[in-house]
Parts: sequence; structure tokens; C-alpha cells
Amino acid sequence: MVTCDRYINPLIVQRADPFIYKHEDGYYYFTASVPAYDRIEIRRARTLEGLAHAAPRTVWRKHDQGSMSQLIWAPEIHYIQGSWYIYFAAAPSTGPGPDGLFQHRMFCIACESQNPMAGEDAWEEKGQIQTGLDTFSLDATVFEHANRLYYVWAQKDPQIKGNSNLYIAEMANPWTLKTQPVMLSKPEFDWETQGFWVNEGPAVIRHQEHLFMTYSASATDAHYCMGMLKASVDADLLDPASWTKWDHPVFQSDMAEKQYGPGHNSFTIAEDGHTDMLVYHCRDYTDIKGDPLFDPNRHTKIQPFTWDAAGNPDFGKPVPYNYNSTPAAM
Amino acid sequence: MVTCDRYINPLIVQRADPFIYKHEDGYYYFTASVPAYDRIEIRRARTLEGLAHAAPRTVWRKHDQGSMSQLIWAPEIHYIQGSWYIYFAAAPSTGPGPDGLFQHRMFCIACESQNPMAGEDAWEEKGQIQTGLDTFSLDATVFEHANRLYYVWAQKDPQIKGNSNLYIAEMANPWTLKTQPVMLSKPEFDWETQGFWVNEGPAVIRHQEHLFMTYSASATDAHYCMGMLKASVDADLLDPASWTKWDHPVFQSDMAEKQYGPGHNSFTIAEDGHTDMLVYHCRDYTDIKGDPLFDPNRHTKIQPFTWDAAGNPDFGKPVPYNYNSTPAAM
Repeated sequence: MVTCDRYINPLIVQRADPFIYKHEDGYYYFTASVPAYDRIEIRRARTLEGLAHAAPRTVWRKHDQGSMSQLIWAPEIHYIQGSWYIYFAAAPSTGPGPDGLFQHRMFCIACESQNPMAGEDAWEEKGQIQTGLDTFSLDATVFEHANRLYYVWAQKDPQIKGNSNLYIAEMANPWTLKTQPVMLSKPEFDWETQGFWVNEGPAVIRHQEHLFMTYSASATDAHYCMGMLKASVDADLLDPASWTKWDHPVFQSDMAEKQYGPGHNSFTIAEDGHTDMLVYHCRDYTDIKGDPLFDPNRHTKIQPFTWDAAGNPDFGKPVPYNYNSTPAAM
Repeated sequence: MVTCDRYINPLIVQRADPFIYKHEDGYYYFTASVPAYDRIEIRRARTLEGLAHAAPRTVWRKHDQGSMSQLIWAPEIHYIQGSWYIYFAAAPSTGPGPDGLFQHRMFCIACESQNPMAGEDAWEEKGQIQTGLDTFSLDATVFEHANRLYYVWAQKDPQIKGNSNLYIAEMANPWTLKTQPVMLSKPEFDWETQGFWVNEGPAVIRHQEHLFMTYSASATDAHYCMGMLKASVDADLLDPASWTKWDHPVFQSDMAEKQYGPGHNSFTIAEDGHTDMLVYHCRDYTDIKGDPLFDPNRHTKIQPFTWDAAGNPDFGKPVPYNYNSTPAAM
């Protein structure tokens, strides 16, 4: 059995919006937002613990100017139909647009080499992912289901209060949408509207006969938390009615343990090949000086989770740090 | 016996100029240059491995302008006479001065609290360390010996070819020199003058009846390597004649293992309380895009070392990475 003590937390310091993918080559691939928001880097290791020590390589860096020149956020690396893809958000400046929000749009880079660690020359830009609406958009993820490729992301709708809602569309290819965006969730509950009205950072996992979509809500302080949607694997995933939304957060701060604002999660599996693992970031203090965006101490954490009798995930609470309780293996 | 396999390398990714100090409270304290060169952060853990996972705290950040506003380099944390001190170098800009070199000077911050992790408010600036010569200077370390406190650093002398030489002085207090700087070493051998003429990054360790001063030489590429000086513990440490200089590097790149430019070392001891540990940074590729200064992938490594029959350190070679050869402890 994989217990929380199996892993040292935080797993990787100063990496927010963490994403881990276990590939068929046996490696865990890791990417995340870097504190400078100036590049995309990836690392890989045979074990999850190995990721804490794995040497990164930069695979893409921000442009000097233009739409991909600032605030490179939340990369995810996926392997689709024999090639590697990284989805990420980028902005033309660090400042807000006319709507008062950041000005991110979503982009994709691709690597046809089987070794995505070869460096920047192995990756090519596929351009912006067009959704039909030219507004603040970010945090894209993709998943394949029933021989279809889906794109899920967060975007601002000027007609809806808040920073961003969650959308889904089917893809024609890994960098082009085939269908119109359909909104699956918007900030509406108390816990989704603290500080800012936010739904972002979606992640999808299948368990038995259901798909679960987790996401993050509220401002990225101690109020940041995870919500969840659920759909049957046989349902029309592009129909909002197929998705049921939880009315309470499924993962949130543990004030007593100083684990603040857990979220922007992804999923992977343990080395045993079957234990589900939650990957997320979290802060350990709230007395931030200056702009929280440029405080680098959102740390990547991982922990196993289980499924309850109803077949829903039980994420528990953010595990405490244990890097000082692990005995020295002398 | 502490073997190289005891530790996973690299220990900490993207931290250059690493410094580890084991304090009487049982913690290892770690600081280093951060990739953005914009702040000083420290972390602590009960074990060296724990440092890979330890959550950092920022204890000082660069000024908006002035002499401490750019390129914050090579902090070292020391505990002297009951208080904490961090020595570091800072520059007024990222560009060169009239002499074509960076414009760093050396500074000190202090913390009277016994807990240096309390954050920025616990630390106060002690100002620039004045050496009597207003030139490029950096990489200060301090050590106590025979009830005297010594300061050792790298500095440019306009009369001497190259970027910097090594100097020593006695201190009146932890932020003030008492004596005139005395030069102990300058770049002179082939291996000290590759790319640039450099002696920098000194570190001092005692073994039996001798003091050893290691340092780094040449440009910070694959030519970067470590040299060494030696003095008797009874000698006048302010007399250059007391120090014997090695005519060959004592630690250098291992091209076959892709360990390039090891250096800027410090020393600590293993968890067993007696095994000496070498702490240094190293790169694992040479095909750097753009300015190497802003390529973040100098990684902190650690490895035990031994002493030969003559009482001199045998640092061996930079150990290979082993984060993928460590078995999963399932």
C-alpha cells in the first residue's frame, strides 16, 4: 500500500501549477510554472522522488515581445498520437488588459522526437489555440476518451462575472478545436468567489464508469481550493447537463498544518502502477511581502488518494511537510 | 562509512554557489544564488537529503536601485559570536563597469534572532564590507581560527591581469575588517586562465594541523575547476608565505560523465558528524543558449571526500547523477 509517508513533501520546491505524466518509456515527466515565468522546462525521472533531483532542460523560452513574451504559466506535457505536446498560457505584458484581467492566451508547442528532453531545437511552435472568443484564457489540459480528443480550459466570458469559467471542446487535432466551446462550470458558490471569482486549472481522471474533472477556485491565497465535476463515461461530454458539480470543495487549506491554498492539481499514478496520486501546489505561509505572484514559494506536493464506496475520490487533506521527520538513512 | 551512493545527486537543482552550514541546533542550513539573482533565501533540514525538499524563506531582497539592486550572488550564512550573518555580493546594474567587469561589491546582513528562518523582518543590513580598494569584489567567506575572525574573498586589482584574486584580512567584527587585505593567490597557471583569468569562491576547512583553502578558477564553463592553498594552523595566516599553492586543479570536469565546471564549493559534514562533505555546483550540458549567466541549470551536488596519507584532501571526481539509479523504495 502506498502511504503518504512514502513520499517526502514538498516534493519539488518553488514549482507552481505542477503537472506529472508517466509515459510508456517508464519515466515520470514533470513540468510546472517556473518562478520567473520566462520559460518552459521539463524534467524526468524513474520515480516520483527522483523528480525532486532530476536535472531540468529548457524546451522553450518566452519571446522578446508579442503575445508570448510574459508570464508563461501552467505548462502541461502530453503525448498524443505519437508526438509530444506542451500546452501553456502566455501574455503580451505583465499588466492587465481593458477588462482588468491578465491578458493570457493559450498556446501549444510540439516535439516529434521521441525524446522530448533533447532541448529547444526539438520543439516547434504550433501557435495559439483559438477558441472563438478573444479573452483571457489559460490552464488548458487535454484528454482522450472513446477515441475522441478533448480540450478543457479556463476562460473569461465578458457576460459572466469573474475571472474565468471552465470550458470543453472536442479537438480536430492536438492544436485545433473542432467544436464550439461549451461552459461546464462558473464561479457561483461561496468557496469559488473568495477574493476573485475563479474557476481554473482543470484536470481530468477516469475511475470505473465515470470521468472526474477537478479544478481550482477563488483567489490564489489561502482561499484557493479544489472543486469537482463528474460525468458518466457514456455521456455526451460536450453537454453541460452530463456533468454534475459538487457544491463544496473537495480539497482545501489546512490552517493547523500551515498548508495554504492547495490547488492547480494534476493526476498521476504511483510507481506500483495503480495507486492514484494527487499532484498540486500549496504555500506554507500567508505573510507574503509584495505581489504574491512573484513570491516563489508555491511548492509542488504529491499524495496518494482513494475512492469511496460511491466511487468518488477522497482526497483527504493536504499532507503535512515531512522532510524533517524522515529518518536519516545512514 | 558514508559513500557517494548515500546521497541522490544533484542534491538541489538550479542552485549555484551552494553553501551548507550545520548548526548546533541540529539543522543543516542552505543558501545559494537563486536563478533570478534577486533575493537571498535560506532553507534548513535535519538531513542533507532533507534540503532537497526543505521549504525556503526569503530573508532579504534586492533594492529597487543602487549598489544592492542587481545580480545578488553567492550568499553564505554563518553563525558568529551568537548571531547570524549572511555575506553576499550585489551590483548596481547587470552591465559592466569602466574596467569591463561586473560591478559587484560585498555586503553583510545580520539576524540577532536565534531563528534565522523568521523572515525578512528578522534581518538587518550591515552595509558594504570595505576592503580599502573600490573594485569588483565578491564571494566572501569567513572563518574563526585561534580566537581570530578572518575574512577571505575575491577582488580585482587594477594592477593585476584578470578578473579577481584571493585576499585575506582579519576582522574587527563580523562586518568590519581590522587589517589590510593581503593577496594569497592570483590566476597564473594554465587551468586558472581559461576563458577568463579568475580566482574566486574561496572556502576554508581545517584538517589536523593544517588549514586548506579551496577556490575556483577560469571561466564558469567546462573549464571552471577548483584549486587549493594550504597553511599550517600555527602559521601567520596573513602572511602569503604561510600558504602553499597547488600547481594543478584538485577538482575538475568529468567530460565522460557530463559533469561540467564543478566549483564554487563549500564544506560541511555528513549526518554521522565526522565525514567531510564537498558541496559544489556543476552543469550537465555545454550547449547553452543565450547568456550562460541566465541559464539556471547549475545544480548543487554533494559528495563525501577523504584525506590522503599526507593529510591532504582527495576530492576525487564529480560523482555522476544517480537520481535514476536509486531503486524505488516501494
